[in-house]
Amino acid sequence: MNNLLDDIQKITLMGPGPSCVDDSVLNAMAKDTIGHLDPAFIKIMDTMKGQLKTLLHTENQLTIPVSGTGSAGMESCFVNLIEKGDAVLVLINGVFGMRMQDVATRLGADVDTLEFEWGTPVIVDDVKKQIAKKAYKIVAVVHAETSTGVKNPVAEIGALVKGSDTIYLVDAVTSFGGIEITMDAWGIDVLYSGTQKCLSCPPGLAPISFSEKAVAAIKQRKTKVPNWYLDLTMIMNYWAGATRAYHHTAPINMLYGLYQALYLILEEGEDAVYKRHMDNHLLLVDGLKEIGINMLVDESCRLPMLNSVHIPEGADDAAVRSRLLKEFKIEIGAGLGPLAGKIWRIGLMGHTARPENVEKLLTALKKVL
Amino acid sequence: MNNLLDDIQKITLMGPGPSCVDDSVLNAMAKDTIGHLDPAFIKIMDTMKGQLKTLLHTENQLTIPVSGTGSAGMESCFVNLIEKGDAVLVLINGVFGMRMQDVATRLGADVDTLEFEWGTPVIVDDVKKQIAKKAYKIVAVVHAETSTGVKNPVAEIGALVKGSDTIYLVDAVTSFGGIEITMDAWGIDVLYSGTQKCLSCPPGLAPISFSEKAVAAIKQRKTKVPNWYLDLTMIMNYWAGATRAYHHTAPINMLYGLYQALYLILEEGEDAVYKRHMDNHLLLVDGLKEIGINMLVDESCRLPMLNSVHIPEGADDAAVRSRLLKEFKIEIGAGLGPLAGKIWRIGLMGHTARPENVEKLLTALKKVL
Repeated sequence: MNNLLDDIQKITLMGPGPSCVDDSVLNAMAKDTIGHLDPAFIKIMDTMKGQLKTLLHTENQLTIPVSGTGSAGMESCFVNLIEKGDAVLVLINGVFGMRMQDVATRLGADVDTLEFEWGTPVIVDDVKKQIAKKAYKIVAVVHAETSTGVKNPVAEIGALVKGSDTIYLVDAVTSFGGIEITMDAWGIDVLYSGTQKCLSCPPGLAPISFSEKAVAAIKQRKTKVPNWYLDLTMIMNYWAGATRAYHHTAPINMLYGLYQALYLILEEGEDAVYKRHMDNHLLLVDGLKEIGINMLVDESCRLPMLNSVHIPEGADDAAVRSRLLKEFKIEIGAGLGPLAGKIWRIGLMGHTARPENVEKLLTALKKVL
Repeated sequence: MNNLLDDIQKITLMGPGPSCVDDSVLNAMAKDTIGHLDPAFIKIMDTMKGQLKTLLHTENQLTIPVSGTGSAGMESCFVNLIEKGDAVLVLINGVFGMRMQDVATRLGADVDTLEFEWGTPVIVDDVKKQIAKKAYKIVAVVHAETSTGVKNPVAEIGALVKGSDTIYLVDAVTSFGGIEITMDAWGIDVLYSGTQKCLSCPPGLAPISFSEKAVAAIKQRKTKVPNWYLDLTMIMNYWAGATRAYHHTAPINMLYGLYQALYLILEEGEDAVYKRHMDNHLLLVDGLKEIGINMLVDESCRLPMLNSVHIPEGADDAAVRSRLLKEFKIEIGAGLGPLAGKIWRIGLMGHTARPENVEKLLTALKKVL
């Protein structure tokens, strides 16, 4: 029988994720599967919680990877906190803010939104005015809006919410591992991420972290969490409880991969990793400018790991991306929503953020355009 | 830095899952990550749908792996079908029937149960009487009850439900890949499974299949599916839609693993795989009998892949399992719920179901007891 896996080619992944994965992470995933209750596996779980806490700069005990992709992380944060009628404010300036709104609405929350132009950041003063008008159980924002390349002022919004009863919930899917996140100092109560962006692990897991205030909110629920699979009160017993009570079978080999990906970041050093992202971002921006390609987002709020660029006049969006993939083995991302056909999204996430990849893309673009 | 992955030892996994994984499946997971919208990946997805349909003996278009473990499969089946107040009948004779009840109740269903003694099968006549009394939207049963080792009469219950408006929902987590499932012939409308049992892939994915009748039920919902991550109306667009619209980033490398695991089963041949499970089960039962260990479940409804045995008098449950793991690198499972401390659960799932493993366990048990 023909085996399709034999045809898989190495692609330089410069889209909005997945990013390039180091061989040591791929090899970690190929280690022998052991039991989810094996003491050797429990030790890996415990160490992984520590890795995540170190990189997020948090003391939160409930800091674990959820068994699903980044969107499962989003789902788990909202479903554990929301009960019918809870007031939620979602700040929207791209696809992932909209997704938060959709998730919270489906769960029966009373959702208000503040919307900002795609490609621009959330305006802190507007948030200040809104939360002065109404008491929210949750204020939610995306740190790195993957659909536009904008960095939102997460620390500044956190300063507004700090000390109140409101739970501050942040989407760190694209930011985690690429730019600084100091969860506790910024007053973030709840955070979720994904593995396939700046952590450079294949997709499949969603690191989350809940502050004591957020855990207390789960415990004060009047109704059971309506999602058994993502019920953190039970998942906590497996990840941190004295008895390690089985909930669902953990995705063992995916967790090996995440352990190794976090190991690599800690080995290289957090600051060095962030600097590598920024250096390569600047290299890319300069190189693109030389060939007449301009950035969508203002320098003041540009993400280093997700570079949205205007598609040059006369270039065929899909044809260029297809040629890059087929002829040059480079993947870049298309625009989403109102930006479809107008921008490309060039990722420099995690392991991808290296000068040789920037050069490779620039060389290819020169040939294709 | 010390790397915990260096300490992982090869364990013969003879518990209730995960099972032993073939090297080719582990190596598949270590293949280079490619994009979730890459045409090469779409081709793998399409082929995988075919592999699953072949093994489940179904024509269901909606036959895909969900991005989570087996319990996410359970969650996705119930959450897509249930709206508040829907009448659901759950047949319970073990932990996983109870879990179904919990999942459906959290979703606001009007749940009735029929309970049967753990270690015995569901009684078809009782089901017949109950469904004559009340019209149910869903009747749900576990095919292979992993907590007891009992095979439930799935085909016989299906015959009762067939032709009615009721949706017949079957948990095939432990049965799929180890015993025959002819989904369409048996009248199963909705089925979910997991990868870490008889498919012998690491945990992390949940194959599901929905009949046209079940898909129509999703489309007739009055309310949106309250779980964004598992909303099949959107996931279908990615797995089968003409545009392949992005929903969430698929767990690429896990899917490589599942593709390879299904490839191996199809290569060996479905009947040969089932025969291998049965042959090794009989070998194990004989060998256990010789050393005075007796089966919990009557021969008429015993599962070949999950063998529940009475813990011999005088044996220390935890100490024996711990010695098997540490000294002999063999994992077997403990009892759950009312059977904790009373039984061991010996798995012969997928790649584990081989004579050398049976011999290895029997030899070890003789030494330890």
